[in-house]
Amino acid sequence: MLKQVNGLSLARRNLWVACGGLRASDSDRGKGKDKGQTKFRTEKDTFGELKVPADKLYGAQTMRSKLNFPIGDISERMPMPVIQAMGILKKACAEVNKDYGLDSKISEAVSCACDDVISGKYYEMGHFPLVIWQTGSGTQSNMNTNEVISNAAIRMMGGELGSKTPVHPNDHVNKSQSSNDTFPTAIHISVGMELNERLIPAVTHLRDALKSKSDEFKDIIKIGRTHLMDAVPLTLGQEFSGYTQQLTYGLERIKCCLPRVYELALGGTAVGTGLNTHKGFAEKVAKRIAELTCLPFVTAPNKFEALAARDAMVEVHGVLNTVAVSLMKIANDIRLLGSGPRCGIGELLLPENEPGSSIMPGKVNPTQCESMTMLCAQVMGNQVAVSIGGSNGHFELNVFKPLIVSNVLRSIRLLADGSMTFSKNCVEGLQANKDMIDKIMNESLMLVTALNPHIGYDKSAQIAKTAHKNKTTLKEEALKTGITEEQFKEWVNPKEMLGPK
Amino acid sequence: MLKQVNGLSLARRNLWVACGGLRASDSDRGKGKDKGQTKFRTEKDTFGELKVPADKLYGAQTMRSKLNFPIGDISERMPMPVIQAMGILKKACAEVNKDYGLDSKISEAVSCACDDVISGKYYEMGHFPLVIWQTGSGTQSNMNTNEVISNAAIRMMGGELGSKTPVHPNDHVNKSQSSNDTFPTAIHISVGMELNERLIPAVTHLRDALKSKSDEFKDIIKIGRTHLMDAVPLTLGQEFSGYTQQLTYGLERIKCCLPRVYELALGGTAVGTGLNTHKGFAEKVAKRIAELTCLPFVTAPNKFEALAARDAMVEVHGVLNTVAVSLMKIANDIRLLGSGPRCGIGELLLPENEPGSSIMPGKVNPTQCESMTMLCAQVMGNQVAVSIGGSNGHFELNVFKPLIVSNVLRSIRLLADGSMTFSKNCVEGLQANKDMIDKIMNESLMLVTALNPHIGYDKSAQIAKTAHKNKTTLKEEALKTGITEEQFKEWVNPKEMLGPK
Amino acid sequence: MLKQVNGLSLARRNLWVACGGLRASDSDRGKGKDKGQTKFRTEKDTFGELKVPADKLYGAQTMRSKLNFPIGDISERMPMPVIQAMGILKKACAEVNKDYGLDSKISEAVSCACDDVISGKYYEMGHFPLVIWQTGSGTQSNMNTNEVISNAAIRMMGGELGSKTPVHPNDHVNKSQSSNDTFPTAIHISVGMELNERLIPAVTHLRDALKSKSDEFKDIIKIGRTHLMDAVPLTLGQEFSGYTQQLTYGLERIKCCLPRVYELALGGTAVGTGLNTHKGFAEKVAKRIAELTCLPFVTAPNKFEALAARDAMVEVHGVLNTVAVSLMKIANDIRLLGSGPRCGIGELLLPENEPGSSIMPGKVNPTQCESMTMLCAQVMGNQVAVSIGGSNGHFELNVFKPLIVSNVLRSIRLLADGSMTFSKNCVEGLQANKDMIDKIMNESLMLVTALNPHIGYDKSAQIAKTAHKNKTTLKEEALKTGITEEQFKEWVNPKEMLGPK
Amino acid sequence: MLKQVNGLSLARRNLWVACGGLRASDSDRGKGKDKGQTKFRTEKDTFGELKVPADKLYGAQTMRSKLNFPIGDISERMPMPVIQAMGILKKACAEVNKDYGLDSKISEAVSCACDDVISGKYYEMGHFPLVIWQTGSGTQSNMNTNEVISNAAIRMMGGELGSKTPVHPNDHVNKSQSSNDTFPTAIHISVGMELNERLIPAVTHLRDALKSKSDEFKDIIKIGRTHLMDAVPLTLGQEFSGYTQQLTYGLERIKCCLPRVYELALGGTAVGTGLNTHKGFAEKVAKRIAELTCLPFVTAPNKFEALAARDAMVEVHGVLNTVAVSLMKIANDIRLLGSGPRCGIGELLLPENEPGSSIMPGKVNPTQCESMTMLCAQVMGNQVAVSIGGSNGHFELNVFKPLIVSNVLRSIRLLADGSMTFSKNCVEGLQANKDMIDKIMNESLMLVTALNPHIGYDKSAQIAKTAHKNKTTLKEEALKTGITEEQFKEWVNPKEMLGPK
Repeated sequence: MLKQVNGLSLARRNLWVACGGLRASDSDRGKGKDKGQTKFRTEKDTFGELKVPADKLYGAQTMRSKLNFPIGDISERMPMPVIQAMGILKKACAEVNKDYGLDSKISEAVSCACDDVISGKYYEMGHFPLVIWQTGSGTQSNMNTNEVISNAAIRMMGGELGSKTPVHPNDHVNKSQSSNDTFPTAIHISVGMELNERLIPAVTHLRDALKSKSDEFKDIIKIGRTHLMDAVPLTLGQEFSGYTQQLTYGLERIKCCLPRVYELALGGTAVGTGLNTHKGFAEKVAKRIAELTCLPFVTAPNKFEALAARDAMVEVHGVLNTVAVSLMKIANDIRLLGSGPRCGIGELLLPENEPGSSIMPGKVNPTQCESMTMLCAQVMGNQVAVSIGGSNGHFELNVFKPLIVSNVLRSIRLLADGSMTFSKNCVEGLQANKDMIDKIMNESLMLVTALNPHIGYDKSAQIAKTAHKNKTTLKEEALKTGITEEQFKEWVNPKEMLGPK
Repeated sequence: MLKQVNGLSLARRNLWVACGGLRASDSDRGKGKDKGQTKFRTEKDTFGELKVPADKLYGAQTMRSKLNFPIGDISERMPMPVIQAMGILKKACAEVNKDYGLDSKISEAVSCACDDVISGKYYEMGHFPLVIWQTGSGTQSNMNTNEVISNAAIRMMGGELGSKTPVHPNDHVNKSQSSNDTFPTAIHISVGMELNERLIPAVTHLRDALKSKSDEFKDIIKIGRTHLMDAVPLTLGQEFSGYTQQLTYGLERIKCCLPRVYELALGGTAVGTGLNTHKGFAEKVAKRIAELTCLPFVTAPNKFEALAARDAMVEVHGVLNTVAVSLMKIANDIRLLGSGPRCGIGELLLPENEPGSSIMPGKVNPTQCESMTMLCAQVMGNQVAVSIGGSNGHFELNVFKPLIVSNVLRSIRLLADGSMTFSKNCVEGLQANKDMIDKIMNESLMLVTALNPHIGYDKSAQIAKTAHKNKTTLKEEALKTGITEEQFKEWVNPKEMLGPK
Repeated sequence: MLKQVNGLSLARRNLWVACGGLRASDSDRGKGKDKGQTKFRTEKDTFGELKVPADKLYGAQTMRSKLNFPIGDISERMPMPVIQAMGILKKACAEVNKDYGLDSKISEAVSCACDDVISGKYYEMGHFPLVIWQTGSGTQSNMNTNEVISNAAIRMMGGELGSKTPVHPNDHVNKSQSSNDTFPTAIHISVGMELNERLIPAVTHLRDALKSKSDEFKDIIKIGRTHLMDAVPLTLGQEFSGYTQQLTYGLERIKCCLPRVYELALGGTAVGTGLNTHKGFAEKVAKRIAELTCLPFVTAPNKFEALAARDAMVEVHGVLNTVAVSLMKIANDIRLLGSGPRCGIGELLLPENEPGSSIMPGKVNPTQCESMTMLCAQVMGNQVAVSIGGSNGHFELNVFKPLIVSNVLRSIRLLADGSMTFSKNCVEGLQANKDMIDKIMNESLMLVTALNPHIGYDKSAQIAKTAHKNKTTLKEEALKTGITEEQFKEWVNPKEMLGPK
Repeated sequence: MLKQVNGLSLARRNLWVACGGLRASDSDRGKGKDKGQTKFRTEKDTFGELKVPADKLYGAQTMRSKLNFPIGDISERMPMPVIQAMGILKKACAEVNKDYGLDSKISEAVSCACDDVISGKYYEMGHFPLVIWQTGSGTQSNMNTNEVISNAAIRMMGGELGSKTPVHPNDHVNKSQSSNDTFPTAIHISVGMELNERLIPAVTHLRDALKSKSDEFKDIIKIGRTHLMDAVPLTLGQEFSGYTQQLTYGLERIKCCLPRVYELALGGTAVGTGLNTHKGFAEKVAKRIAELTCLPFVTAPNKFEALAARDAMVEVHGVLNTVAVSLMKIANDIRLLGSGPRCGIGELLLPENEPGSSIMPGKVNPTQCESMTMLCAQVMGNQVAVSIGGSNGHFELNVFKPLIVSNVLRSIRLLADGSMTFSKNCVEGLQANKDMIDKIMNESLMLVTALNPHIGYDKSAQIAKTAHKNKTTLKEEALKTGITEEQFKEWVNPKEMLGPK
């Protein structure tokens, strides 16, 4: 509509309207855009009745949360891995609850319905519309899961959606559970899985790529730099071995925090006492979750800590923050080493992934390094959000859980995807610019230290000073003082400067 | 597929597969899910040819970025307001470029095409698929915009998509511009608009709601609390006046940083010199942008700063951080005052928005406070990401720009939506629990200070000590010492304690 | 003692002992090392009697805090400016209280005693031993001040230390005040003074030094760099004008937040109501403080906000954080531009302040840049501490005040001292390495863009590509294509590339 | 001087002067206040001669750094544990260097001189005046140590201070070392020692105190609280068992990061290659350091990482941050539980350490909790400073080292001292307010869940609703419905609600 009135020079007002419209439309999205042609059915909870879209499996409590928390757009949704983890734990509970009296048909239907939660299918179909910014216990996402699973199971068993018969979201799907123990359990499951399946493989991949480069570059001697200033030489391989080591430690760090991630709150119910569960329930469920995920989950030894604190997530994020710090250092070095092509350091040639400049050959922007350093900065910011959330629990329950888990999962995802992309599109294609490396090193004056044992400190220093003043090379000045070409070649040998004697 | 094999007790392996599948599928999303039935056309850039989905307006450079940066899912997309702001500035440039030789038909077509960028329509249709984690200059989003607009204009003029004729993405849409000045301009436009259209109205709304409550509660005298301990009385209205004042200052703070937000980099082109632009271009474009947005944008007095630094965004986020700090304090107080119903402070009754407990009446969880405090923690974390990004510019260009703008815009959105939601679903429905407020205040021993002028400090202290020891009230103990009921009522009058003499 | 037993190869055990000893001794320091020969007098508070060092002016409450909070060493002391500000406000109160019945002799003695608090003399003499990590209201430092001033006034009037006669720490020095309004007042006074007397002059000094350099370098044309890669040229003066502009904005930012710093809580007493003060007291005291400090302090319009929130400090620190971000960018650029002498960028020559390398001339480490970037990182960390403290107030009182003020003051001090040092020992001595700047620029291939209008884009690009491939210069390759030396000189003229046409 | 002119109403001007004076004087302190009567001797380095105070052992390079970095006051000094660690490593090197040709008399003198560095004596005597804000490699503190030790050894051997004979600071004390490997080694030694000797014992002490309380309170049944709202009961012992568990994990976390702290950079010299050292030197020195400290230090497997990165410190601080998060939660809970005495929750009685209110008995401010939560906020801020420093290393050397180590050591010290103080002055004296706990729990309506199995869900809910409406107790309403007193007592038994069935 902006177009039509354009000629009328009402653009100002119209842009405003257009923008207003857009705000309206995107805030709608929060509320579901379910108006107009959409069909509805009625669902109810203890609070009353509510219309929900007929094609959605969620019920009244989910709908209510959508209406009460229209915050942000689709990018603020509760992350998928949390919902998948919810599916895993609901499946485990349904199966274990058979031992404690749950009807086996219901158990099977629920377990089956969980599979489509676990696979992510229901999430992608929009059955989990809630945002991070809801109740801090995650209760509404727990109820969202209960509602979706019960309706899916009801449908499977031929019942009517929303009837809560024969599968009740609370009595059956949530049996022996509370939001207060399921949500932290989903946090630990999702983070444990993402660390194992996403982050560790990606960091390992990048580490191995750096190791390869370290091997490939092992004989390339280059100038070292400290304080950004010329220093004594090392090999490019040695330089890359430092990066490799950083990530090897990174992997160790991740593994160090896993034992506490593997401890599950489930069985603590409302306040950690386990009220309304049976003895053995917590252990059996943890075992079943371990089987389903192939990860060594166990029941937490103290459920009061497991509900009231989220320290394990703060710890995990501390490790993610450390990995981000390592990656930022590495990416920064690589872009500095690749700076140029003429007016920078130019020791590395970065792979050319996109046009840098249409006319300027060799202008290969270090875009992968930029992406990597940006996401590291995000992780370092997320650390603060997680720490604040972790420190503000009250009494029996931490109520910053959706904040905490969304940040931990986002940091994992960014670091993992970032590591893979950085490895494939940058590190693996790095080439040493050997001519430049040689040229720079030979121009360096730092090699003068190698003359000391032969002509003494004072004479050596004098040669360096003269070369610096005259903007000549060490060799030029050395020859002037009577050193022969062969002597210089023999004495000033960077290869001899790469290790202890 | 997990379901079928369930009976085979291969669940372990299958869950793994299912999860693997899911990973694959969601990382696909990054790459666009464009396989299979999708039709393609060929686009090219200086780097070569590339197939792009036939129904999309973007070209080769956008496609290349999608392939090079498969990082995160849809929630990592470059925020819509940045793209809309790009549309605004491209429109302004197209119009101003007529004065500098741009064919008027092309100018009009481009200007017209921009409207669908500005309205958000093209963003919602998927023509802007790039993520935040791309080149740090935002070049790829600038090219995405150029490609979409040129193709839209080509279509409008009857040309062939991807032909770059008669509207070329670089020569026409990007005329006299560089990513290096357009992207920071888009940052300032989008942040300026979001502050004005989203944040200021929302914070004002919440401030006014708190002001209303302050007025409503002006005669309710209650116990004050310092160090969380009982202190001298004040009115509930006075307490809320403090919250009101915090947000009044918040609005002042936002307004204080706007002048620097209104300064635009456009006209600086590649390094700030304005190479390839004409004198007057920068000023005219800024003026046109001001007209289009109804906001007082001007050209930045120093384009070197405008390209190399993003300090204005760090400053803006410092203000957002301050607003978050205010809101966290307010939300925390409200949930503490509403704690109970029997075992907490219970001075406020929070509106009941959803079932708190199915059996426990009065258990109204402060879910709106929880949502608010979580998002405030996020904003406090984003502050660090923005600061790190801002501090790491090099030479003529800061290359943490997508990181910076995405955090600033997210913080604005969260604070704005959070303030509206918190106002409507919590503050506006707050009720004073007068019985409780009275009861608590009358049980308090702090009122003893009012006896001092009448019976002296020592006797007063003695009464308080006895009441504390006996767990009785001040009045009970006072009467025992010979004070009459009338005297007590007259002397111990909280109303007299609400201000200076 | 480690020495004697050294030969006995008991070193291991002994080092342990030595270290143990050392721990003991430094934790002693917290407690005052007042044992042994020290003389004591007895002071008392409502809690009982306590021995305090006879040569110290503080009393029982201070002593009690020392014993209760043995946290950290001398570097954790409450910062001097807070105590000096306390002196200022106590002086103002003593004088104004004469209007409300305070005996004029006492008023004068108190006012006089305050001068030695204001001058910092008593702080340096050890009369203010308390650490930051005390009660979060700063009550103990308020009482420390009351005790020191009352004893000093008593001594002046010939009384006995600790007798509280004729000057009582509470009844006279603290008259019409509460820790809850004095401490935030001291925060605002000290921060207001430090911003005006320390930070603004220092940042102005550095800004002016950068401006001088910008002027000095205005004709030096150099290669521009974006993404760390070679770009089109600009002058070194233009580059420095960006830095100058950053700090000009920094000064504007500081000034923007001052109005809220100038608002004082004094007069709010315990919970903001002003109980136990007189009408007009708050205004008169603020006016007196304004006179004493020559700064436009006023009484805060809402005392509930002024006691319960510390948002103004969060806002101030947001500005300090922005200044730190600017300075980090500037210092980083300068050290990168100065990298070398042979294997870096080498466009700037940094002043040589200390030996960089005993043998390597020209190895001038950018130590001033390192100091600056380190302290900027500290400021960015302090931002988080301040934000967390600010957001965690409860009800009528924020109890993170010593944390908040100590971070704000430390950040001011570091930025101010850092700016002066960086200006004097680095910026003012910077020299352009003109030969290097010229050489690099002439080797650059980016100037090829200047050939476009003369020989067309394709031919130009071909020349650049050949030069890149052959590692030759543009000129060399251009001449091969038939361009004459004069033509090249005329066409490829960086001077023409420094601004819009 | 302010005093004299007071009457002249020149106070305004004079305060200004006084303040100016004070600024001058405290910035003097940075420069050493060594003027006037102080005696000097001349020291020199490669840069030239410089006067140093005759009573100080440091030399020209230290003096130069003092003059070049007048930043902050005494609280900004390089922390003592770093200097002590420097002493340890210099001692180890001196002893090992005997194997590589160092004269044994010199070796002994140096080793002996180191003892006074290790004991902290020389630090306390002012021989180590340098601040954190120096060169980012710590070179100046390394040279400070070399100068002090060489002069001390010279004095011991009868030589002349400053003569560098017979013990040279570089040739002997710094033999086979570089600042680039000694300073990170000192970081790891000091942090390793402080973690072991200070933090672990303190956290263990606090953990044990909480465990004691958990045992002591094991039979006290109380209301649980989730979302700050009344929930089902647990014991106070169970609540404290959660805190205990948090710290048990904290200790595990500290121990997890130690292996990487125990790896030492020494032997890497300037860039990690170990140039100028001998094979075996690194291993022998690490072994000697392990003996001296009784901690399992080893030589780092990759010296390039050990010089260029400080990731181990970022990791350690991530753990400190987690401990801070735990402690903040615990301290917050305790002050909320202790709020009152009449108008708060009042379940805990906090020990009374100082006067809370002179007239208000029972007003025991939770000052220890306030101190603790403030220092936790500081630690959370320090995390950001350390992360920024860690991520900004360049090439072969991280130059944010003094920043990093000072923050890590400060966080350790604050957490350690804070834990001890909090334990001794708060936790160990906590008492359960049993009457209040009982009263509150019995008023709670949450116990209604216990009626379900006996009278059904609907009837139970009705009773709770009526009690809520009538502000009566469950029991009162239950009796009205025909339940007998005995039945109520039997059925509604919180003791049965404390675990799974």
